[in-house]
Amino acid sequence: MPTNRQWILKRRPEGEIAAGDLEFREAPLRSIEDGEVLVRNIYLSLDPTNRIWMSDQDQYLPPVAVGDVMRGGTIGVVEASRSDRWKEGDLVNAGLSGWQSYSIAPGAMLNPVPQIPGVPLTAYMSVLGATGLTAWFGLMDIGRPQPGETVVVSAAAGAVGSIVGQIARLKGCRVIGIAGGPDKCAWLTGDLGFDGAIDYKNEDVGAALDRLCPDGIDVNFENVGGAVMDAVIGRMNNFSRMPLCGMISTYNATGPVPGPSDFARVLMRRILIKGFIVIDYLPRAGEAFAELAPWVASGQIKWKTHVIEGLDNAAEAVKRLFTGNHDGKLLVRISPEP
Amino acid sequence: MPTNRQWILKRRPEGEIAAGDLEFREAPLRSIEDGEVLVRNIYLSLDPTNRIWMSDQDQYLPPVAVGDVMRGGTIGVVEASRSDRWKEGDLVNAGLSGWQSYSIAPGAMLNPVPQIPGVPLTAYMSVLGATGLTAWFGLMDIGRPQPGETVVVSAAAGAVGSIVGQIARLKGCRVIGIAGGPDKCAWLTGDLGFDGAIDYKNEDVGAALDRLCPDGIDVNFENVGGAVMDAVIGRMNNFSRMPLCGMISTYNATGPVPGPSDFARVLMRRILIKGFIVIDYLPRAGEAFAELAPWVASGQIKWKTHVIEGLDNAAEAVKRLFTGNHDGKLLVRISPEP
Repeated sequence: MPTNRQWILKRRPEGEIAAGDLEFREAPLRSIEDGEVLVRNIYLSLDPTNRIWMSDQDQYLPPVAVGDVMRGGTIGVVEASRSDRWKEGDLVNAGLSGWQSYSIAPGAMLNPVPQIPGVPLTAYMSVLGATGLTAWFGLMDIGRPQPGETVVVSAAAGAVGSIVGQIARLKGCRVIGIAGGPDKCAWLTGDLGFDGAIDYKNEDVGAALDRLCPDGIDVNFENVGGAVMDAVIGRMNNFSRMPLCGMISTYNATGPVPGPSDFARVLMRRILIKGFIVIDYLPRAGEAFAELAPWVASGQIKWKTHVIEGLDNAAEAVKRLFTGNHDGKLLVRISPEP
Repeated sequence: MPTNRQWILKRRPEGEIAAGDLEFREAPLRSIEDGEVLVRNIYLSLDPTNRIWMSDQDQYLPPVAVGDVMRGGTIGVVEASRSDRWKEGDLVNAGLSGWQSYSIAPGAMLNPVPQIPGVPLTAYMSVLGATGLTAWFGLMDIGRPQPGETVVVSAAAGAVGSIVGQIARLKGCRVIGIAGGPDKCAWLTGDLGFDGAIDYKNEDVGAALDRLCPDGIDVNFENVGGAVMDAVIGRMNNFSRMPLCGMISTYNATGPVPGPSDFARVLMRRILIKGFIVIDYLPRAGEAFAELAPWVASGQIKWKTHVIEGLDNAAEAVKRLFTGNHDGKLLVRISPEP
């Protein structure tokens, strides 16, 4: 058996993830048993929610225990199988198998990777993976955009936000993205067809929203929280909707993070706010895939992946999610594609 | 023509309503014109939202202009009619005709008062009026309680809260009310069938919720905001719902009022928060009335009215809503019932 290489949660970060919070180790792999499969992981997904899992705050899954392999989503290839569901060489979605080069799982816990001609494997870790499902369900199930409405999305150049904006555009909405830096903003309006982009690092977000959303805001797809969220909520219309997908600006906070600075507006404007987690929608994944896959195959939706080479760089790479120093969906290539 | 007696908004309150914010005056009544009706107002509804209307904060209706008659809902009797819709002696729901002894309105702007044998006229200003509709739509359309779920309602002995709790009980829920003082709490559990009551003035609300809601909270019908709201949200379950009806604890605040103190929980627990205003539901009023009216007629829902005699006492009486020094739906009797 090969040796496994793993990242362990050594201690819970305080504030930003620091050296020593995660520890790299090598560990022997046991043999697989009846019904099990050995998966060589190829791609690891790095996501803002990783920071939540490292903490012991109240959250939607149990926190990663200190001493355990760090949790993370992977795609891999079957290297050995004692399950009649899988054979050597099959590509599998290994779920939350963790930051490690190999994983062993019951065959029933793995899922096939759909394969569309011309679509790269990395797409199933981004636009056609959990990222795309997050965007589609949050927007369509909670945001419920109507043609002609104004949709604002924060972290708009991020993996989820960039898909949200393109779906909203395909649904006939006016789409304004909020992102950090002129290059990201230029990508949104120049390549993705956003109607406007706001560089929160160099612009007054409120003033820019006033200019770009003259009819107010009908859907706020919320990814960041904090002051940017407040600026958007302050311009939301009667009966508007706010899918609460994430609050990345707050994940390194060391205490509870307050809600909207003017909560009366939620009452006065009859705003709907709904938190959601993509795992709740997995049983309905087919609905999203049926709409996303043709858009991806036909080039109507674009996406970027930012691939970091080597599992040993994962702990450094995950920090990029919080500095914005990445360009598209952040992945680690653990081993080569077959 | 008789003389009209009116309360004018003289200046906007800062914090609590103070002497001099409202001014009583007498004014001549003009003659009615073709299509118009002269209504002698009988009951005036006093509601927490009156305080919102007095302010110039962002709100769901235009603020009452300084110098205008204070806005308020009334029921009255037709004293003179030049509309073929109404004749002298008809009881009418005069809508937001204001704090005055008479009002003149186009006949098309008035609505009939339904009359169920044995049900007093005041019921149409409370359980079978806007109060009951507020309770029913907030709970049923947003809260969507399921049998066996736990429903918490704040300001539970108030006009809306007491109806909310009884509807939830009739729907098969476990119902916990939060109210101020032992008498109100005893009324909830002793007379209204609440499963538990928490006296926020004399108990630790969080500890009491832990004791009374061992399975967490599925619906939070929010009437008060502030620390009580935070204690409830901190115990809300996955996929729970929070109809945001009001935040009376904050209406005298002189600046913006922040949202939940731990907003991450809205994400982690996938909580739905939705602000609502009863006027949005008026076109659907029949749905609520169809369920409420039989409950009221059969005695399955109880309610209290606290009637203040005389329009000249209205400005002093409205303050009771913020001190809790009232017992049930607060009304002013402007003139005798026919």
